[in-house]
Order: sequence, then C-alpha cells, then structure tokens
Amino acid sequence: MRPKEFSDLLSAVREKRPLVHHLTNYVTVNDCANITLASGGAPVMADAPEEVAEMAAMAGALVLNIGTLNKAQVASMILAGKAANKKKIPVILDPVGAGATKFRTETVHALMDEVDIAILKGNAGEIGVLSGTGGKVRGVDSHGLTGDAVAIARDFSKSSGFIVCISGATDIVTDGKRTLLVDNGHAMMGSISGTGCMAASVIGAFAAVSPDRVKSSAAALAAFGLAGERAAGRAAGPGSFKAALFDELSSLTPAEFARGVKVHTP
Amino acid sequence: MRPKEFSDLLSAVREKRPLVHHLTNYVTVNDCANITLASGGAPVMADAPEEVAEMAAMAGALVLNIGTLNKAQVASMILAGKAANKKKIPVILDPVGAGATKFRTETVHALMDEVDIAILKGNAGEIGVLSGTGGKVRGVDSHGLTGDAVAIARDFSKSSGFIVCISGATDIVTDGKRTLLVDNGHAMMGSISGTGCMAASVIGAFAAVSPDRVKSSAAALAAFGLAGERAAGRAAGPGSFKAALFDELSSLTPAEFARGVKVHTP
Amino acid sequence: MRPKEFSDLLSAVREKRPLVHHLTNYVTVNDCANITLASGGAPVMADAPEEVAEMAAMAGALVLNIGTLNKAQVASMILAGKAANKKKIPVILDPVGAGATKFRTETVHALMDEVDIAILKGNAGEIGVLSGTGGKVRGVDSHGLTGDAVAIARDFSKSSGFIVCISGATDIVTDGKRTLLVDNGHAMMGSISGTGCMAASVIGAFAAVSPDRVKSSAAALAAFGLAGERAAGRAAGPGSFKAALFDELSSLTPAEFARGVKVHTP
Repeated sequence: MRPKEFSDLLSAVREKRPLVHHLTNYVTVNDCANITLASGGAPVMADAPEEVAEMAAMAGALVLNIGTLNKAQVASMILAGKAANKKKIPVILDPVGAGATKFRTETVHALMDEVDIAILKGNAGEIGVLSGTGGKVRGVDSHGLTGDAVAIARDFSKSSGFIVCISGATDIVTDGKRTLLVDNGHAMMGSISGTGCMAASVIGAFAAVSPDRVKSSAAALAAFGLAGERAAGRAAGPGSFKAALFDELSSLTPAEFARGVKVHTP
Repeated sequence: MRPKEFSDLLSAVREKRPLVHHLTNYVTVNDCANITLASGGAPVMADAPEEVAEMAAMAGALVLNIGTLNKAQVASMILAGKAANKKKIPVILDPVGAGATKFRTETVHALMDEVDIAILKGNAGEIGVLSGTGGKVRGVDSHGLTGDAVAIARDFSKSSGFIVCISGATDIVTDGKRTLLVDNGHAMMGSISGTGCMAASVIGAFAAVSPDRVKSSAAALAAFGLAGERAAGRAAGPGSFKAALFDELSSLTPAEFARGVKVHTP
Repeated sequence: MRPKEFSDLLSAVREKRPLVHHLTNYVTVNDCANITLASGGAPVMADAPEEVAEMAAMAGALVLNIGTLNKAQVASMILAGKAANKKKIPVILDPVGAGATKFRTETVHALMDEVDIAILKGNAGEIGVLSGTGGKVRGVDSHGLTGDAVAIARDFSKSSGFIVCISGATDIVTDGKRTLLVDNGHAMMGSISGTGCMAASVIGAFAAVSPDRVKSSAAALAAFGLAGERAAGRAAGPGSFKAALFDELSSLTPAEFARGVKVHTP
C-alpha cells in the first residue's frame, strides 16, 4: 500500500471530525478524550442507560473498554452496542484485563455475544486468552502469547468475524484474509498508563471515516505510534512524554505521516 | 469597570482559599480539581448521598456538572443543591451536553426546578436548547446559537432568574439587567477536553468571595482566559498547553491580571 | 540506618515490578496509576464486587482510598481487603477527608473493623480525627494536629496495631516502637491535587517488596519526596511540576536516591 492511502485517512479524520462515543474506564478516560481530539475526532463519554443508545446513534464510532467494568456499565455497553449496530456504526472493543479475572473474561464473551463487534483490539495476553490459544494476564498487563501471533490473530479473526488488532512492538491488524503489520511506536509508550486505551480511541476515530477497517486500524495505530516516536525524542520521562504525545499527534501533518508510516504485510 | 475591581477578586480568592464542592463528570474531574487549586481555591469532590449535604454546607460554592450524569448522581446533586441553598452558598450549573440527549435536557430542567441555581454556564448550543431559542448540540460540542447571543442570554436570565454565562470566543455574562463581555481566551483552549468544565470551577471559586456574581463570573472567565492566552504563547500543542494553563493561572498575579483583563459592556 | 537500605528497596521495586491493586477515587486515579508505574510497580484498578477478591489475591499490595467513596465501593473494599488479608498481602488505607463528614469517619472505622490494615497513611487532620486526639478537616484539606505529632502517631499505632504514616513537611512513620522521620519533599507538592493519594500508591509498591514496613514506607515517602524536590527545580508552576514529578521518580536511580534520602529518627 502507498503511504498516501494512510495519510489520506488522517486528512479525513481532521476534516470530518467524527464523534467517538466511549464507554470506558475511569482511569484513562481523560487521556482517551484528549487523544481523540488530538487525532482530529470529537470525544463524548456517556454511560447512563437512559441515554447511551441515543448518544451512540449519533456517533461515528463506539468504543467499549472494560478497564474498570461493573455490571451497570456492561448493561449500558450492550444497549449502546445494539444501537450502534442498528445504525451500522463500527464498534471497537478493548478487552482490558481479559483473562486476569473470571468476571472480565465472561464479560467480554457476553459483549461478543450480544453486540456485533467490528474491531477487537487487545494486547497479546488478552487476545491469547480470548482466542483460547493461551496467554497470561496479570492485572492489566500482558505476559505474551504462545505461538505465532500472526497466525493466532488470523485464525481468531476468521472464527469470530472481527477485525483483530494485537498491540505490541509490532502491531498486527487482520480480518483473517488480509494482514497488516505496524512498526511505528516507541518503548516509552509502555511507561505511562493508558496508551492501549488511547490506541482504541484513535482506531475509533479512523474507523468512522473509512469502510476499509483493516487499513483504517493500521493507519490509526501507525499515526499514534509515530506520534509516540516523535514524543519520545523530546521527553525526559513519562510525564513529559505524555504531554508530548498529545502535542505530536495533534501537530502531525498528513505529509509527515506519509513519510513516517511503517506498515507492511507479513 | 476598573481593572482593579477584577484583580481584587483574584486576590480575595487567593486569600480566602474558598472550598469549591464539585459533583462532576469523571472525564475532566482531575482538571477541575487542579484548576481550582491554580485559581487559589480548594477543591473537594464528593457525591455519595450520605455526605453531599454535609460537604456542600461547608463549601464556599457548589459546582454541578452533568458531563457523565447518572440517576444516582443527579439525586445527590439535588441533595447537595438544597443544602447549599439553605446556607445561601452559590450553586453553579454546567449543563454539559444539554440538547444532545433527552436525558440530559430533562435532567437540567429537573435540577433547575429543584435547586436554586445562582449561575448557569454553558456553551452557545446548550444555552440555546435550554432557553428554547434553538441551538444544536452534538455529543458535548456546541454548534452555535441562532440569533443575537447577548439578547438571548439576557432574556433567558430574566425569565429564569439565573446569572447566565455563555462561553465562547467572547464570553457573555448577564443577570438580565447588567451584561459583561469577556474577550480573554485563546483558540487553543478548544484543543483540550475540559476547558468548559474548568471554567465553571473557576467561576465557583470567584463566586465564593463576592456577592456581585456578574462581576465575579466575568473576573473568573477573564482570569482563566488570560491564563489560556499566556499558556498558548509557550505551548507546542494541546499536551504542553494543558500543563502551561495550570502554571499560568497559578502564577498570575493580581497586577498582571489588572493589565491583561479584557472585560467590557456590549 | 544507612542510605543503601532505602535505595535497595527502590531497586527491589524496579526488579520485582509488584502489582498494586487500587480501589480509589475517580479524581486522582490516573495519577495513582502513573506514579505506580514511575516507582517501578504495576498498577491495576478494579472495584466490581465480582472481581475484587480475585484481583487483590494476585497483587503485591492493596491500596484503599476513600476520596470519592460510595456504599458499593466500600463493600468492594471490604471484599478486596479480606482477600488480601487471607493471602498476607499488605493493605494500605488512605482515609481521605476523614473527619470532614460523618460518612467518611464512619466508613474508615468500618474498614478498620473489617479489614486488617497494615499501613494507615493520612494527613495530620485525618490522623487527629481517627486517633481521637483532635484535628480539623475541611473538604479534603488538613488543618493540623493538636499536640505532639510523633507522640500521637506512636500512641495511635500502639492502640490500633497499624503502621501509622502522617504526611507533612516532615513525614512521620511509626509502628509504635520504631519511628522514622522523612524530610524529603517540596512545598510544590501541595500545589497539585493527588500527591497524598500518589504517596499511598508508592507506599504500596514498596510494601510489596519488604516485610519491614516501617522502613519500606519511609523509603517510599523519601523517594516520592525526593522526586518532588527534583521536579520543583525545573517547574514553572503546578502543571509542569506534575509532569516533572513522574519524570523524576521514573528516572531516579538507586544511587541518586541513596545520596538524596533524608530519613532520621526523632
């Protein structure tokens, strides 16, 4: 694929300013709001059962994140998910900590049963647990995937019907047939809380502007990762890195993105 | 009005360090706490029904923000609001996203019915919806007010009895008879999540130290806006802007405020 | 004590990367997550009754913070606390705002009754209220302790069985017999919301790697305070200070810590 295909999607996000509705955790929610803005989208957070369907129906994408899940919020996620499904609005699921507790694993399965998920984005441990191929999760940290990650992602995508994204040093995006690998990113992204959650927000903003969600997800992860690379270059540690991450994604021009994007096929 | 009338209020906030009790959303709550501190006030966040009345009764101002409202929190807002009313503590209402969903609009009307609101601060879309003069809200973003904003604010203030603040490139503050316009501020304030919420916190801190709440609200918006102008001058993007915004409000001296305040009458 | 005894604990946190499970408030939760990472630990936040016991049982320490408590969260705190107790995992309690409202004071007493608390960390006002020796709390701000703080902390530790930490210009850590005073820290730490909460997170990370919890708590407060001193040296105000605080704790080497630690006996 040509770099311009990815950078055109960044231009589209900036131009259309898609509304990204989040039902997410209370730990990194502010970062999700600000990274959505930095990507060019417009964030909204709402989880009351009285309003989630109405809010989701006006969004360009719906992001569900179970980082600090509870029963009431999961019920709202299902309401919002069904409303998004009815309007063909893409639903992105971030199964934070799936595998760490039975409640998280069961909740993710319930969400997968009740809602038509477009894109499932997790780390290697979470995807390992959910695909049934193994994987260890401690707290919300991944402790790796056993076996060939690309093959696991492909097989899980085929059996589930979701686009599967595995975040890592190289991100994997696949719909089972087509697979893209993203080499953008920087180790400092692991030094702060919330980069995984923020990645899902950016995936949501990009999914809202393109029907090709393998490409849009790879573009989102590449743009976010490139911002991370640039931020790392001027950071003295995780606090200054985080501020720089918002600066860099916000100021990233399509031309710079086209020059810096590192997406390839396996 | 002379600049010193506004800067004296900043001095008063710094000296009296008023407690500002918030029932607010979980997206920007940390920013509200830190901007209250930067203005010179002392923030407290509490929303359990068992304690909100007691907490509100010891505060200098009560800020209600429906950004991520739910039924239980709204019930607590009413308890807190009634306790504040009994003690003549000013209540500031930020109707985030009113008009976007029926639940938000109805909740704001319920709060207005049950609680004696001193100051209603919204963006043009929210005030348009609430005043019945039109206005469009998508997610939590305003898409403008139809007609003469000053006249709408004045009329709405007269009919409701609230001081009405409309935030925007020029902020409008009116009690129906007297109107002040605030030209301080910077476009970068729209690049981060939460500036609207933070403005309400600062309005709360200033309301706690003055019975003239048209003047105190204009002073708050001017101080916050001036901090935004100064922060923009040394920011590379939204992340560094946000850190600078707290720095600048915190270090703003009354003398600098008197020199930089831009408040006038229509 | 030799400085190396403290710096070895920092090395141990970095090496073992203990999981610190938090049930905490939604105001400063993101800061708690990021400071845990900066200290070398791994944060996890979870409060659903369905999963807290399972999550706590895999942690190295459990931090309970009542900053924005509600009944459901307190019930989860008790479940998590009992699970931690069963596995001999240290429980750190931060009684934010105890004394400000009856609900907070009663909740802290309930937590003390139901859960075996290893370390109680509060400010002078909170500890004064809980020890029954006086102390005033407005909102979540301390207004001091009446009398000899060291003696009060010692007596309260003896009668309660907790290690008692009182944060302040000089932090006090005592188990009733042995007392350590920590002089690290900087006045700018009071300019941002959440430094008290963050201190409890760091205490948790250090408690997970040492059975000597007087020493580990003093080491945690010294490392956090030293990071604050270094951050203040390059901050222009509270916003840049906060970013620098994460940078400085993250980059603090054991050798630098050994040179900068200021812990002594009364």
